[in-house]
Amino acid sequence: MRLSVDNINQRVVAAKYAVRGELAVKSEEYRAKLSKGDTGLPFSEVISANIGNPQQLDQKPITFFRQVCSLLENPQLLEKEDVLINGLGYKTDVIERAKWLLSQVGSVGAYSASKGVPAIQESIAKFLERRDGFPANPANIYLSGGASSGVNTLLNVMCTGKEAGILIPIPQYPLYTATLSVLDATPVPYLLDEAKSWGTDLETIRAAHEKAKADKLDVRCIVVINPGNPTGASLPEEDIRAVIDYAAKENLVIMADEVYQTNVFIGKFHSFKGVLRKMQQEAPGKYDGVELASLHSISKGMVGECGHRGGYFELVGFDPEVEANIYKFVSIMLCAPVIGQCLVELMVNPPKPGEPSYDLYRQEYDGIFQGLRERANALHKAFAQMEGVECGEPQGSMYLFPTIKLPAKAAEAAAAENRTADEFYCMRLLEATGICVVPGSGFGQAEGTTHFRTTFLAPGTEWVGSITKFHKEFMDKYR
Amino acid sequence: MRLSVDNINQRVVAAKYAVRGELAVKSEEYRAKLSKGDTGLPFSEVISANIGNPQQLDQKPITFFRQVCSLLENPQLLEKEDVLINGLGYKTDVIERAKWLLSQVGSVGAYSASKGVPAIQESIAKFLERRDGFPANPANIYLSGGASSGVNTLLNVMCTGKEAGILIPIPQYPLYTATLSVLDATPVPYLLDEAKSWGTDLETIRAAHEKAKADKLDVRCIVVINPGNPTGASLPEEDIRAVIDYAAKENLVIMADEVYQTNVFIGKFHSFKGVLRKMQQEAPGKYDGVELASLHSISKGMVGECGHRGGYFELVGFDPEVEANIYKFVSIMLCAPVIGQCLVELMVNPPKPGEPSYDLYRQEYDGIFQGLRERANALHKAFAQMEGVECGEPQGSMYLFPTIKLPAKAAEAAAAENRTADEFYCMRLLEATGICVVPGSGFGQAEGTTHFRTTFLAPGTEWVGSITKFHKEFMDKYR
Repeated sequence: MRLSVDNINQRVVAAKYAVRGELAVKSEEYRAKLSKGDTGLPFSEVISANIGNPQQLDQKPITFFRQVCSLLENPQLLEKEDVLINGLGYKTDVIERAKWLLSQVGSVGAYSASKGVPAIQESIAKFLERRDGFPANPANIYLSGGASSGVNTLLNVMCTGKEAGILIPIPQYPLYTATLSVLDATPVPYLLDEAKSWGTDLETIRAAHEKAKADKLDVRCIVVINPGNPTGASLPEEDIRAVIDYAAKENLVIMADEVYQTNVFIGKFHSFKGVLRKMQQEAPGKYDGVELASLHSISKGMVGECGHRGGYFELVGFDPEVEANIYKFVSIMLCAPVIGQCLVELMVNPPKPGEPSYDLYRQEYDGIFQGLRERANALHKAFAQMEGVECGEPQGSMYLFPTIKLPAKAAEAAAAENRTADEFYCMRLLEATGICVVPGSGFGQAEGTTHFRTTFLAPGTEWVGSITKFHKEFMDKYR
Repeated sequence: MRLSVDNINQRVVAAKYAVRGELAVKSEEYRAKLSKGDTGLPFSEVISANIGNPQQLDQKPITFFRQVCSLLENPQLLEKEDVLINGLGYKTDVIERAKWLLSQVGSVGAYSASKGVPAIQESIAKFLERRDGFPANPANIYLSGGASSGVNTLLNVMCTGKEAGILIPIPQYPLYTATLSVLDATPVPYLLDEAKSWGTDLETIRAAHEKAKADKLDVRCIVVINPGNPTGASLPEEDIRAVIDYAAKENLVIMADEVYQTNVFIGKFHSFKGVLRKMQQEAPGKYDGVELASLHSISKGMVGECGHRGGYFELVGFDPEVEANIYKFVSIMLCAPVIGQCLVELMVNPPKPGEPSYDLYRQEYDGIFQGLRERANALHKAFAQMEGVECGEPQGSMYLFPTIKLPAKAAEAAAAENRTADEFYCMRLLEATGICVVPGSGFGQAEGTTHFRTTFLAPGTEWVGSITKFHKEFMDKYR
């Protein structure tokens, strides 16, 4: 029997990944048309606001990082230090870092150890120690191809089948539900509290967990995305403490997706690892059993190197035999991209004050941060003026996730197209403006509410104006 | 319940991946000891002959490739063309290629489209057309993070569960059985014919398939590794024709793992795609239904850029709805590393005669090829002189896979350690010499036979001498 959609793996068929779904595919078709000179579209540019892809839009890479990478890719350049310094303006710390990384990796074209380059694991451990004020063990750190591949590894190891439940925030980044679908495990959704800046609510978590237990699910893990995707919210320390305390009592693994840890405009990032260690110190013995996996990435933040596919996860409190199986699982795919691993090293160990590359690094880093905040605020301001749109202040990450209240006639028109109201709205937006956003249903949302997620990465204000104009026309048409 | 080896995903626990298994872990421990100045070991260097990792050993990257990559990583360098040319010796075609690739990818730090950069898909299609003499459709080409990730994608989509059977050559590269274990699908092993230079034997395939059907398996696919891993054999065209003909009759998807297509010393590489197109031309209509996925990689060959995790697969004859699900599956992991995709482009579209970088490229490429052949021959010569060791002439890939006939006393000693005879032999070899090879049981072997796989990548002849010396002592001890 030839392969068909009816006889292939139905767990793959059932998986949904709206970030690159129908709308994204259509937007790429528009982009291709435009690049072939098509003038029949009502817009002249496609804006991919569906995906956190900073360098596709305006964000420039950090000079220090890329200078080091250029030397890692072509070590022959190190034989011409005078040209590098006098002809190309490379600083001495660029050259030193490249030499050191090469001494550790050999060649970026060689496989590293399965868990990553040992010296890079050590650099990450030192970063975690500086960040949290508590030591980290390099042996528990696993380099990965972006955080996505780390999530995939951990869910593969934890999920035994349909009976395995994983607590997932709603709204969530759909990597989680898509991966659980492929693994035939069961997502146990818990709603974030939009009224409280999308924080976690322990009673909601408990209720979801109790219901899952009553449904005979073996709930193994709670996923927390902090700062949130798509919400941008940074959890207050008390929310994190409550989750850790609950996980300890209920023997839930905590998976802390912390890839937006530097994209914080309001509040402060508290790492699960740091809070856990504090709680362990305050109440000796009580939290020793907690199993925590926390993930980070070079894709987001001011680094924005998602095309390089770099990241890591740190395990705390895992059984060594379980870790041995995680090792085996990652070793089957050999290793994370080595140049991506080197970018992780650069991210966690950037130039320090007084070092030759520091001033430029600082200036670039701060410039990106300010630029993101300004764009977020401009977009937020536009949303505030749109009829039926509500959006909390931009808190962080790379996204806004406004609620939109659509007229009943829009919902009817959507149903006639076999779409949800938010899909219908986003499709019309794309067709009218070339702006691609993701319907809230792609992340999950409370019943009866409608959202969409947009990045605030695109430069300029023209596209924001297009959204405002489209929205007014849409509302006029369906009011 | 905390995670333990008893309650995590038992499909992961059951997976075996000997290439980076116990021996590899032990060899890394030795390496760490040596680097800390330990002088208590009977060797001064660890030789990782367990894994095809060319640049970890002696193989230098191709200059043209890495020069281009250095510019992709730091596009600011393109503002100083005179320094690049006069100060660093970059040729104009290096600069042109980098500019062109950057015009296509934007930034190597940005996500590409899920299937890869469209211009790189087109470059690959042109390469396939030159290689095979038949057109290729860029839309059917998927960039992947090495071939491993392509195999993982395809098996995920094809495997529905235990009832799904996949025909796997024995010996095989253990990625296949490990992935099938994780997916809870059933490998259907078919033995390669050692007496016929490890070719495929259709009657053996048919018998394995018939038995699987009798066992109620839904056999969906036949995997062929050509040139072979671990065997190095290049299949003659008639073997490939027989497999295609059989697959057509039996509606089996063909997965052709062709990552060693340029590592051929004896015979000639025939691509499945090229042979299929010829058969389709010769017998119109008869082979139209054949579904073929063929994979290639930047990790092997004279490129050897495995640390960059680049590769692709081409689909022929797949149902568009099935392809849509493959698209969705790869999009969940976003995209293959973009610098790795660029290296794929460079591999399939290297400098041409007359272009400024051509002479050096040719010289480096041929030098690597000759070096591999010489090392393979030296190792083969040593094996020929070892008691109880038989090894066919080196045919290709990066490996030799000799048979060893071990004395009964060795088998007894192995059993006392709860190891197979080949594991026992390889462990003693590692302990005595620091040379890490992989026991034949890690790949599968005919019952009653014993093999090991060694790469011939390590430079020099000293390590070959160490194997010879060890082997003599081992045989003397257990004879």
